[in-house]
Amino acid sequence: MTNALVTFPIKEQFRQSLSEQFPQIHFDFANTIEDAGGKEVTILVTYGSDLTEEILDQLTDLKWVMVASAGVDKMPLEKLGERGILVTNVSGIHKTPMAESVLAHILSLNRALPIIQAQQKQKVWEKMKSSELRGSKALILGPGAIGGEIGRLLQAFGVYTIGCSRSGGVHNGMDEDISFAHIQEYLPEADYIISVLPSTQETRWILERSHFQLMKKSAVFMNFGRGDLVKEQVIVEALQQGEIAHAVLDVFQQEPLPLESPLWEMENCTVSPHVSALSAKYVERALEIFNENLQVWLSDNKEFKNVIETERGY
Amino acid sequence: MTNALVTFPIKEQFRQSLSEQFPQIHFDFANTIEDAGGKEVTILVTYGSDLTEEILDQLTDLKWVMVASAGVDKMPLEKLGERGILVTNVSGIHKTPMAESVLAHILSLNRALPIIQAQQKQKVWEKMKSSELRGSKALILGPGAIGGEIGRLLQAFGVYTIGCSRSGGVHNGMDEDISFAHIQEYLPEADYIISVLPSTQETRWILERSHFQLMKKSAVFMNFGRGDLVKEQVIVEALQQGEIAHAVLDVFQQEPLPLESPLWEMENCTVSPHVSALSAKYVERALEIFNENLQVWLSDNKEFKNVIETERGY
Repeated sequence: MTNALVTFPIKEQFRQSLSEQFPQIHFDFANTIEDAGGKEVTILVTYGSDLTEEILDQLTDLKWVMVASAGVDKMPLEKLGERGILVTNVSGIHKTPMAESVLAHILSLNRALPIIQAQQKQKVWEKMKSSELRGSKALILGPGAIGGEIGRLLQAFGVYTIGCSRSGGVHNGMDEDISFAHIQEYLPEADYIISVLPSTQETRWILERSHFQLMKKSAVFMNFGRGDLVKEQVIVEALQQGEIAHAVLDVFQQEPLPLESPLWEMENCTVSPHVSALSAKYVERALEIFNENLQVWLSDNKEFKNVIETERGY
Repeated sequence: MTNALVTFPIKEQFRQSLSEQFPQIHFDFANTIEDAGGKEVTILVTYGSDLTEEILDQLTDLKWVMVASAGVDKMPLEKLGERGILVTNVSGIHKTPMAESVLAHILSLNRALPIIQAQQKQKVWEKMKSSELRGSKALILGPGAIGGEIGRLLQAFGVYTIGCSRSGGVHNGMDEDISFAHIQEYLPEADYIISVLPSTQETRWILERSHFQLMKKSAVFMNFGRGDLVKEQVIVEALQQGEIAHAVLDVFQQEPLPLESPLWEMENCTVSPHVSALSAKYVERALEIFNENLQVWLSDNKEFKNVIETERGY
């Protein structure tokens, strides 16, 4: 019998339904990998951060890691690759809450919601400046599943979308596609620069001060990917120097964001505590993808969804 | 020569361009109708509130009133109708900023932006509850140009839209159309109840306490039409009793909202000072519509855009 260890926390109803649906598999539910003891685990379902190299060495029967998040950058990918272990994630399920979060922040700034709320606290009835999203331009770094959903929604609002990827290939939800090599030419035209890039060797620290100096003074920079896209100090200086109008950050170089970070107190920075992918439907959707892949596992067909290429990192 | 009086405040560049574009017309620009003195005005371009019955009696040559707003409820419509004066408005230009405002508020609540902002002020890094818009249901009272644009955008987010009008006829942006007579049947299913209804004899005070009691406890009620749709006291009680989760109000029974109104201090109410239609592009767009209609006026074709039926009031 195949042993599956689930350290991804799920409710009793979901545990029961997994066990009933897949009687060929023995499920173990534990809070940590250590709790599970010396089980001969073949399948591991995890948020990802508990799988260290050391633990991986102990799990000699491991054949498949299903990561119940999108980011796999904290995992021992090299070793997983060497051992030929299948790694899958749930990246698709993030696209709805993340794209809704990005649009929420953009529209809120455009339609002056923070000012409306501040005025309400003071019982002030006054008109304020507000702008329209229609007719603006967005540069989306990482036009994959999540970026494409952001692009699709922005297009519905009449925004011109430019996808920026390594290859510059054609992506859904984009009016135009460019490669990273051409980003400097496009930065001066963009009203929104939105990153949903994963953390890989190629994306680490790729945005530098010179990029911010090319942006419009009215531009909004949004990082919803990973905090190692750009040094915190670069963002702080760009905001302090007025090189851009606003930053909305859901990810940070160090998380939780340290109390001494100047970003907390900057009026032109929104600090979001890595919550853009949260959704009341998260577990349900993650398990749907696990279920589908588990059926593939049990069948002869080996066409898994959301397979991570361990060398590439996404 | 035709005399046009423009009390709608516009910048010098727009004044010049009107005068140059239409040499057949003598334009007078004044802050108020009284300022303009006893001119023989044929065309009046106004925000609307300065045209009283008394002044209308003095403007014996008046043939056309172009109202540079959507609402005409404060105008002497009956008398305008009796005299056969053409009344046009600019309702179409509101749809973009208003729909963006409605979506901004909905997404902001869903993605917990007010909590994120409050936490940032306290330097608190904590996850919070947030939900998805996708899969929810919206009931849109007034599925015209503005309501249709709201519906179109909501549909892009995967929201099921129900348009509620007098006739129940088919409207753009709606998955389903119902008449007012059936509203009670649909209220218990709606996650968002959004009114963009104008103020007419048929829409005044049509929402009553019993309607709110039919709504979901998790429902959000939004009034972006006119304040005389529902008594303020009815909204206050529905919020106090937890019959709905939140109200977002851009219009009020009395504006500005009096300081003593309990709505200001209610945590589950957003008080927006009638700003949802504001846009940096407002004047430009209003004048575009005026230009088009002025060309119609000077031609033989009498197919004006945005004609108000004075008896119906919209």
